[in-house]
Parts: sequence; C-alpha cells; structure tokens
Amino acid sequence: MKLYSDSFEKLINELSRLPGIGPKTAQRLAFFILKMQKEEAESLAFAIQEVKNKIHYCKVCNNLTESDICNICSDQNRNKEIICVVEEPNDLIAIEKTRGFRGVYHILLGRISPMDGLGPEDIKIDSLVGKVKKGGIREVILAINPNVEGEATALYIAKQLKPFSVKITRLAHGLPMGADLEYADEVTLTRAMEGRSEMFST
Amino acid sequence: MKLYSDSFEKLINELSRLPGIGPKTAQRLAFFILKMQKEEAESLAFAIQEVKNKIHYCKVCNNLTESDICNICSDQNRNKEIICVVEEPNDLIAIEKTRGFRGVYHILLGRISPMDGLGPEDIKIDSLVGKVKKGGIREVILAINPNVEGEATALYIAKQLKPFSVKITRLAHGLPMGADLEYADEVTLTRAMEGRSEMFST
Repeated sequence: MKLYSDSFEKLINELSRLPGIGPKTAQRLAFFILKMQKEEAESLAFAIQEVKNKIHYCKVCNNLTESDICNICSDQNRNKEIICVVEEPNDLIAIEKTRGFRGVYHILLGRISPMDGLGPEDIKIDSLVGKVKKGGIREVILAINPNVEGEATALYIAKQLKPFSVKITRLAHGLPMGADLEYADEVTLTRAMEGRSEMFST
Repeated sequence: MKLYSDSFEKLINELSRLPGIGPKTAQRLAFFILKMQKEEAESLAFAIQEVKNKIHYCKVCNNLTESDICNICSDQNRNKEIICVVEEPNDLIAIEKTRGFRGVYHILLGRISPMDGLGPEDIKIDSLVGKVKKGGIREVILAINPNVEGEATALYIAKQLKPFSVKITRLAHGLPMGADLEYADEVTLTRAMEGRSEMFST
C-alpha cells in the first residue's frame, strides 16, 4: 500500500537530498508546497533553475557572479593590494557582512583534504600564486576555517607564497564574543592566551 | 553594495518562504543548489511543478491523489463502515504508518479556528454529515489534534452527527509511550487518570 502518490513521493525524495533536510522535514515542506498558490510554486521552481543557468564563478576571484567579473573585483573603491583568501563563497559573504574589509578576495573553492582525495591541485591555489607572482599585492590574509584541514591548507599556501615579498597573515584565534571561559575548549583557550594583547599599550 | 547576485538573492527569498527555513538556512540551501549538477537542480524544480500540476483532492475523502479517487477510497479491502476524521492529509499518513487502521478517512482540510476566521463552513464538515446521513456508516472516529481548536472542532462535529445512529469515538488521551510522569503536563496526566484501564480484566 503506497502512502504517497508518485509525484508527491518524488518531491519528498528531491527535497530530502538538500542538506539538513531529513524525511520528516521533506514531507512537511512538500505539504507546504502543495498548499502554495500555483504561481508561488512556479516561482520557486524557476528560481532554482535560474540560479543554475545564470550564476558562474568570477574569472578573477572565483566568487559567484552573473557577469564575467564579480561586483567586488570590478569595484574601483576596493583595495586590490590586499587579498583575503577564503574557502567558499559563503565565507566571503560572512566577511562582507562585517563591513570592515575593503580589499579583494580569492576563493579557493575547497580546501586540501586528503580524506576526501582533495590535493593542492584540486583547489584554486595556482591562480593565487600567479596573482602574487605578478606583483602589486601587499598582503594576503588567510581567512581559512580554523580546523585540521583548514590549517593544513593555510600552511601549504603560506609556504607557496613565502618566496615573494608579500605579507602573509591569518585571522586571530581566541574566544568568540559573549563566550564563557568555563565552556571554551582547551585549544581555543590556549590560542586566546597565546594571542593576548595589552590593554594599555605603553 | 550588494552581497548576492540577483538570481541568487531571488532563490534565497523563495526558499525563505518555506516553513522552518530562516534566512541562514535558505542561504545554505541556495549554495547547495548552486553546487548541484544541473540535472539534479532541474529535477528538483520539476518535482515542485509536477506536484502542483498533478495532485488534487480525492472526491470522496479529500485525501491527496493523482486520480479522481484516492488509493484508500478505491481499495476494496478497506472497511467503508468506519470513517476516521482527520484535519490534514499528513495526519492520515501518520495513522496509515501505524498499519493498524483498516477503515477509510475523511479529511477536513482544516479546523474551526475563530482566531484565523475559520468557521464550520470553511472546512469539509457538510460532506461528512452528508455521508453519515446517507447511511452505511457504523463508526466515526474523530482523530483531531488534542488542542483547544481541535477539541472545539471535534465537539462541533459530534453535535452535528448526534441525530444519526452512528457511533462517535475519539482517540484516547494519555501519556505518550516512553514518557516520564514527572515531566507530563497536568492536563495530560488528568486525562491519563480518567482513561485508566484495568490490567487484569475479571
């Protein structure tokens, strides 16, 4: 005895593939979509297709864009001498939301991860080295996620860039704002101690 | 400065309309869809459109179906003398999953909710009364959610059906399996006491 009709089951299956959506949530979403106005459902379906048709990677920094070169790379007010290296386009968005960074980006589209069979040649390291080699870059900020694979990726990139006269920095590690010392893990706390700064500089 | 490209922002907006999907999750899903194979994204978009095009309500019980009459209503092995009344198609699925019920259903497609401006005439009560009036029904089980609006709906339906010679029952209330007495709310516990049954029937 089938519980769902074919097209409904198909939609549940399709929705279940999305990250963080289990079978129960997929069923709930499918019921919601079924109750939507037809135009709304069409609009959702169209948005999914559009994003696949229109968006590709920026030729300069690998950011997502609908043109050849992304908004940030083509912005004359951004400082092209400072490159912030991130793993994925969503990392770029996280940093842009702080509104504090006025340089440009370089997106690796991944990280070195031997477990997943990803080596340095599988991510966009060569083009970053190329940019630095060409000159005109003052600083490369490695804003890569602070975990084992991210640290390995940052170390690898730092070694590749060492021969060139460029400042290589990375984001500070420490306690997140609003955190509680008692619940901080040892590694974070150690990093926070190591990176401590004077409150009244003499 | 725009963070997202137009089509990407549109997809995030469309996804945010879904229940339980906030802006952060919508962004995560949108990035995932962007990384999908084009065929996979097409397939998801198609499934959304298909479900709207193909599925409608069963003429007999208001269940979701791709034909005129749903699988359950057209199944000769189901007992048509027992009607289980539920609010929504997903309640039907929950009961079907228990594999214990062999009667048929009547789906109200809502409940009486004065707060939302929904009266008895806005849900499928008339057609239920019609079925009972026509005869051949032995029992109507009111499997409506046990909350204020659900109780009011059940009471209203029970009153409507009272003139006819039909048994009207409702689901048992009590402690859920695996529950802890200490954490049960008072109403549930009161109901569980009221509905207590003998362990050794004499």
